[in-house]
Amino acid sequence: MAKKSRKLRVIVLHGPNLNFLGKRDQAVYGSKTLDSINKSIEEHAAALGIEVATYQSNSEGSLVDFIQAEASGSGAIVINPGALTHYGLSLRDALQDTGLPVIEVHLSNIYAREQWRATSVIAPIARGQISGLGWRGYVAALDILAAD
Amino acid sequence: MAKKSRKLRVIVLHGPNLNFLGKRDQAVYGSKTLDSINKSIEEHAAALGIEVATYQSNSEGSLVDFIQAEASGSGAIVINPGALTHYGLSLRDALQDTGLPVIEVHLSNIYAREQWRATSVIAPIARGQISGLGWRGYVAALDILAAD
Amino acid sequence: MAKKSRKLRVIVLHGPNLNFLGKRDQAVYGSKTLDSINKSIEEHAAALGIEVATYQSNSEGSLVDFIQAEASGSGAIVINPGALTHYGLSLRDALQDTGLPVIEVHLSNIYAREQWRATSVIAPIARGQISGLGWRGYVAALDILAAD
Amino acid sequence: MAKKSRKLRVIVLHGPNLNFLGKRDQAVYGSKTLDSINKSIEEHAAALGIEVATYQSNSEGSLVDFIQAEASGSGAIVINPGALTHYGLSLRDALQDTGLPVIEVHLSNIYAREQWRATSVIAPIARGQISGLGWRGYVAALDILAAD
Amino acid sequence: MAKKSRKLRVIVLHGPNLNFLGKRDQAVYGSKTLDSINKSIEEHAAALGIEVATYQSNSEGSLVDFIQAEASGSGAIVINPGALTHYGLSLRDALQDTGLPVIEVHLSNIYAREQWRATSVIAPIARGQISGLGWRGYVAALDILAAD
Amino acid sequence: MAKKSRKLRVIVLHGPNLNFLGKRDQAVYGSKTLDSINKSIEEHAAALGIEVATYQSNSEGSLVDFIQAEASGSGAIVINPGALTHYGLSLRDALQDTGLPVIEVHLSNIYAREQWRATSVIAPIARGQISGLGWRGYVAALDILAAD
Amino acid sequence: MAKKSRKLRVIVLHGPNLNFLGKRDQAVYGSKTLDSINKSIEEHAAALGIEVATYQSNSEGSLVDFIQAEASGSGAIVINPGALTHYGLSLRDALQDTGLPVIEVHLSNIYAREQWRATSVIAPIARGQISGLGWRGYVAALDILAAD
Amino acid sequence: MAKKSRKLRVIVLHGPNLNFLGKRDQAVYGSKTLDSINKSIEEHAAALGIEVATYQSNSEGSLVDFIQAEASGSGAIVINPGALTHYGLSLRDALQDTGLPVIEVHLSNIYAREQWRATSVIAPIARGQISGLGWRGYVAALDILAAD
Amino acid sequence: MAKKSRKLRVIVLHGPNLNFLGKRDQAVYGSKTLDSINKSIEEHAAALGIEVATYQSNSEGSLVDFIQAEASGSGAIVINPGALTHYGLSLRDALQDTGLPVIEVHLSNIYAREQWRATSVIAPIARGQISGLGWRGYVAALDILAAD
Amino acid sequence: MAKKSRKLRVIVLHGPNLNFLGKRDQAVYGSKTLDSINKSIEEHAAALGIEVATYQSNSEGSLVDFIQAEASGSGAIVINPGALTHYGLSLRDALQDTGLPVIEVHLSNIYAREQWRATSVIAPIARGQISGLGWRGYVAALDILAAD
Amino acid sequence: MAKKSRKLRVIVLHGPNLNFLGKRDQAVYGSKTLDSINKSIEEHAAALGIEVATYQSNSEGSLVDFIQAEASGSGAIVINPGALTHYGLSLRDALQDTGLPVIEVHLSNIYAREQWRATSVIAPIARGQISGLGWRGYVAALDILAAD
Amino acid sequence: MAKKSRKLRVIVLHGPNLNFLGKRDQAVYGSKTLDSINKSIEEHAAALGIEVATYQSNSEGSLVDFIQAEASGSGAIVINPGALTHYGLSLRDALQDTGLPVIEVHLSNIYAREQWRATSVIAPIARGQISGLGWRGYVAALDILAAD
Repeated sequence: MAKKSRKLRVIVLHGPNLNFLGKRDQAVYGSKTLDSINKSIEEHAAALGIEVATYQSNSEGSLVDFIQAEASGSGAIVINPGALTHYGLSLRDALQDTGLPVIEVHLSNIYAREQWRATSVIAPIARGQISGLGWRGYVAALDILAAD
Repeated sequence: MAKKSRKLRVIVLHGPNLNFLGKRDQAVYGSKTLDSINKSIEEHAAALGIEVATYQSNSEGSLVDFIQAEASGSGAIVINPGALTHYGLSLRDALQDTGLPVIEVHLSNIYAREQWRATSVIAPIARGQISGLGWRGYVAALDILAAD
Repeated sequence: MAKKSRKLRVIVLHGPNLNFLGKRDQAVYGSKTLDSINKSIEEHAAALGIEVATYQSNSEGSLVDFIQAEASGSGAIVINPGALTHYGLSLRDALQDTGLPVIEVHLSNIYAREQWRATSVIAPIARGQISGLGWRGYVAALDILAAD
Repeated sequence: MAKKSRKLRVIVLHGPNLNFLGKRDQAVYGSKTLDSINKSIEEHAAALGIEVATYQSNSEGSLVDFIQAEASGSGAIVINPGALTHYGLSLRDALQDTGLPVIEVHLSNIYAREQWRATSVIAPIARGQISGLGWRGYVAALDILAAD
Repeated sequence: MAKKSRKLRVIVLHGPNLNFLGKRDQAVYGSKTLDSINKSIEEHAAALGIEVATYQSNSEGSLVDFIQAEASGSGAIVINPGALTHYGLSLRDALQDTGLPVIEVHLSNIYAREQWRATSVIAPIARGQISGLGWRGYVAALDILAAD
Repeated sequence: MAKKSRKLRVIVLHGPNLNFLGKRDQAVYGSKTLDSINKSIEEHAAALGIEVATYQSNSEGSLVDFIQAEASGSGAIVINPGALTHYGLSLRDALQDTGLPVIEVHLSNIYAREQWRATSVIAPIARGQISGLGWRGYVAALDILAAD
Repeated sequence: MAKKSRKLRVIVLHGPNLNFLGKRDQAVYGSKTLDSINKSIEEHAAALGIEVATYQSNSEGSLVDFIQAEASGSGAIVINPGALTHYGLSLRDALQDTGLPVIEVHLSNIYAREQWRATSVIAPIARGQISGLGWRGYVAALDILAAD
Repeated sequence: MAKKSRKLRVIVLHGPNLNFLGKRDQAVYGSKTLDSINKSIEEHAAALGIEVATYQSNSEGSLVDFIQAEASGSGAIVINPGALTHYGLSLRDALQDTGLPVIEVHLSNIYAREQWRATSVIAPIARGQISGLGWRGYVAALDILAAD
Repeated sequence: MAKKSRKLRVIVLHGPNLNFLGKRDQAVYGSKTLDSINKSIEEHAAALGIEVATYQSNSEGSLVDFIQAEASGSGAIVINPGALTHYGLSLRDALQDTGLPVIEVHLSNIYAREQWRATSVIAPIARGQISGLGWRGYVAALDILAAD
Repeated sequence: MAKKSRKLRVIVLHGPNLNFLGKRDQAVYGSKTLDSINKSIEEHAAALGIEVATYQSNSEGSLVDFIQAEASGSGAIVINPGALTHYGLSLRDALQDTGLPVIEVHLSNIYAREQWRATSVIAPIARGQISGLGWRGYVAALDILAAD
Repeated sequence: MAKKSRKLRVIVLHGPNLNFLGKRDQAVYGSKTLDSINKSIEEHAAALGIEVATYQSNSEGSLVDFIQAEASGSGAIVINPGALTHYGLSLRDALQDTGLPVIEVHLSNIYAREQWRATSVIAPIARGQISGLGWRGYVAALDILAAD
Repeated sequence: MAKKSRKLRVIVLHGPNLNFLGKRDQAVYGSKTLDSINKSIEEHAAALGIEVATYQSNSEGSLVDFIQAEASGSGAIVINPGALTHYGLSLRDALQDTGLPVIEVHLSNIYAREQWRATSVIAPIARGQISGLGWRGYVAALDILAAD
């Protein structure tokens, strides 16, 4: 369980290819760029009194490095693991090792696409998952964390 | 896609055993009763200018009957199918037949419990899914629908 | 095997969501309503000298109740189990317990849709199955029964 | 574990098609009717100083409703779930939610019939299971409960 | 979809071992010989104003040859693929390449026999399937095609 | 079916590690030793007018030897196969070869433990199975046999 | 069961690629050509007073044709189905339709090669199978048939 | 490959329950007792100039002990492993460790019975297998070994 | 490995339904007819100094016959097995028996279509495979063979 | 579909361990080093009037970074994903996001090695695949792209 | 957890066929005999101040008997279960019932041989496993136990 | 096999998240930090006259880079792949390409945790594996290598 710090600090992670939002198939992922989504997250967080640290990488190792470096000063993690959702077991271990509550977010409904996208190796160690609700899924995740 | 009515009307459905909330294992499902959750939903809906019609049944057939009766005047469906999540194919057909956007909500993280709870027959025809975030999952679903 | 009564009486059952025919996806299920199909069945039955008793329910329990109540005076059962085709084991037991010949009918070709629709738990205890030939499948079933 | 009430009250449930006992294949299910079995249960219970409440339904929802209504005044549940044994996950949740000890009874040996009958979704949350010993299985279940 | 020719011409194909009807196990396949069935088909077709071209072969390659040669002048195909039902992927491709509507017919109920008979590689590209209704299944197929 | 001898003689077999009862995990297997259980069985059998021959071995071969030696003078077998339940196919053949009715007993509920314990190779050739009801399961088995 | 004719006539069939014996990998299939094997079979048959009719084809359809043409005058079939062992379901049906006893022979041990060679679709309808004993397997099959 | 000794000595092993031949289901296993089969084997071996050492045990461990003790003076092994065919991996290792050619014999056709009997853990290390040809299968095995 | 003949001779085989190229779905298979493709192959081969022998058949047996007849004078095989790719084990054995290098060619990308098309029984014995690159795949195969 | 630029620019990617070519098992991968292969690719491209950009990395993240950086100015991608072929779902997404035609190349025949190498997660989104034809597979890929 | 006795006593068990070490395939198992290995174990144990009790049997039942007899005076178990590794569930239960720490040792690397050797039913209840390091694996196990 | 250099040099690799030892769940992984473990390894290596090169990375690509750079001067590799154990196929190829003996070490018993941890993609190409014996597993690996 997250220790509620004076001001809650939330790590917001974006996995591989999410830096391509806006260029990827917009029928699936929506038209907002990652910068635009991060800006919406930051504005909403500010309104909730939450501090956010956003990070994107195409490399599983870099995501693990970031989690290890930032976990100790943070109270929760919101993560869209991209395709690592389905095989990133090192990422899973890193998230679990922090002991922080993790909310997994997917822009698209991973249960209505290819069969292999319907299995998340992250979900079993997450507190919860929001799938298919677009960029507002991140906002909803912050709302939940703020309400704890 | 839901036709946005003058005032959005959302069907909120609770499947089998959810009327036992408060009596069911609170470590899994939380301590709020279904009445209390419905009240929170209604208050939040009112604040968003959304009309809600809540319904609970332990019978799949009754849920299908309700969906068929109420769909034409509504713009979206929020549903926690309870254990029907995993085998309620008639419920799935009924939801899909309405043509309305469906958001699937689970109080507990269905991916962190028994293996059979990790497969939803509803999710492939839903717009999205929120799992493991407790009663606030319903509220988040309304927020998304209101933002459309 | 059906005892050939003076005048053959056939139970015609429609499972969940079939009362929505005409509203469901017409590319899959055709444009006729259930009332219209039942009328065609009754007219064809009359021409064949067969008495029919039609019934639709969204509830598996109600279908089982109807079968138990009506079986003793009837000589055969024609059933479109809807989505119960794939998991309605109680319905299967009820049909088998009557000892009557059962013909399973599907409006759409269940072998050309989602994978889960390709397995029928009813078929192993049926005399035969007609799939994908629209409402005329019911008529064909009556023709077969009349020819016994 | 069941709290031993002054006088133990046991819910005895019969699932779909068990009201057809005596008409169903007697080589499999025996020749006694459900009324006859219930009478044997009641007589044996009386001899043991146990109160029983018997109920049969072809509808999973009704069984769940009954369990929810009767659980609080009872100390144990004996259930023959019929075909719901194999897919009635709502029934499973309802039984588990009561916190009462559950003994699952099958008239026939479910492990010596069709493959799908060999898996019970109820058994993992039951205290025990008696299969293949006919109506005396219910009596044995009462003996066990009385001896607690 | 079949172009309705002036007079509908239907290819009726019988796969391996169907020339042995009358000698094969009659409890499974009925007592009529293939000649007798073809005669019934032709008489029924004549009554419906349909022209039929019947063909039987024990060789998948010959069936494909026949389909390729006869497809262009025909409006539909009725086929009982015999054991090729379960592995005849070349036959499947040939049928699909014609662009004609295909109705698959089985004398016996393939879902009530050995497990491997319950999967048809033809069904996913067929318009529909009739199984277990004996030689009248061919007649029913013609009725459906005549009604288009 | 067992030939009812003048006085019914029942073989009661205990498989590997059951001689360690009382030392094995008591939360799973109960606190009674095998000697104590056998004594309870013998007393109950005497009250029912049944003769019992009890035997325990850690070796599948010895159990088979015992069954072969004792079957001809006996009318039924009650067996707790221990871990052989899950792979003892030689034991299964030996039991089946006797032609005697077999009741399989498990102290713990084998359906609520490790996945591999949920499959019994003995059950398909048994008359019935009692699982999870502790040492009283043996007593219940004798009651059933006495009532034949 | 084969009707023992005055003089037993046995069909000996060789499936695809067996005409290449002597050219195929000799470490697997031995060094004898098919002609040489057939000669050994005929000599042994003559010594046993058995008439044999040998046939080889690379085409499943031709093998089926031959079986249908020759079955009525014969008392048994010995067959090495070659690769059709693993998918020749039409061949299986043809063999079964004859009602004759079938002995399946393989030169190599099909259980010690590629995984897919370890499953025979012919074996379930055969009287027996001899695998891995080279060309003497045919001789052994004749010995068994002669001893009936 | 077996070193051909002056006079070939063959170990003939019978696994669990084969000492019950004559008492086991004769429709499956034939009517000859094991003693009678062994006598036929010995007579045939004598005619072929082969020495045989026969052994039966219900215990896998004893079979392994016997193989280890007798292998060095022998040139081949004929074994009917009984139910150990399907799980006796220690027996497999023991047979393989001898380096002798092994012929596996089954009285009944293991591919036409329960599904689990269709997989032999012995076959992959055997030279060949004879299944379903009754006691003459042993004789055929000796013929093959004598012909080496 | 192919023995490089004075002038390399390559067998080019086309399996079932490839004679329908130009009529089959052109979005999948392209618009060139088989004659046109063969002409392109022959022209390219001539330019490379390679002799080609092309052959098409809808029958697996005929393809095997052709391979057996032509292999001895040839140095390599290029084959598009059509649907036999997925079940033609006799074809596989025939190809392997030649000892020649085999290059498997598919016009369409078999890994981006129905699931069953993604498994080739030919590939494990081929030297290589070219899939999804249209008729130029044949040309590329010749280039590779010429470069050996 | 690739927009044909004035001069086609093709990204040629080499995944993990391909920089070790020449040191890796030469029987599997050939004796050319990666530098040598790249030189052959560049020479052949120059002859075809194609510009190539080659890149190798042992890190999936770096490959994704490179693809994202280089895609916009390029017309096609040729990739040998190394072991990422079998689990590199992030790489797959990156390739698919570019919208460029992708040709997958493997030096060895991935269908004739360990079972896990026979499944490519890249192939379903590729235009085609060339496997087992050594370094000339890259050259063939360029030929195909040049011919578009 | 093992209670550290004054002087640690360790049971060292060798399963089926390990008495054949030195005769078994030395490329797999090494050239040392079991006596030689036991001597090395004893010398190393003596140096560590550990008492060892070694035992080998080809019979699972005897191994269980030994464990039950010797467990109470011992502090740990080192076991090479031989082929019982893969199906010896009685042995597993016996080991687990002792409550002692168990270290599983394999001479060969069980993950680099036949597929069925890669699953150990013992490992889930062991403290650890050493595989593929030859007889020194036993020595390493003692070192670990001595260091507790 | 490792060429024994004048002084053996061993690469010791630690995969993702192992730099978090001491912070990760100590009940699973123990309380020592990675620095402390490395120090123990180095001291033990020094005592054995072995040189060690330790390296940790959260990135699979970096581990591959390190292996490629360091392999040529080393004689063996000891690796704890962390979660890459279960999907790091690039790491596997890199290890195998070195031709050095590899010993795989796991702090925890990977066979007694989540199901997915029980499969190692590294083990089939390793010389051996040590699992569940804590940091002393590294020491044992060095002992084995020193004894070669």
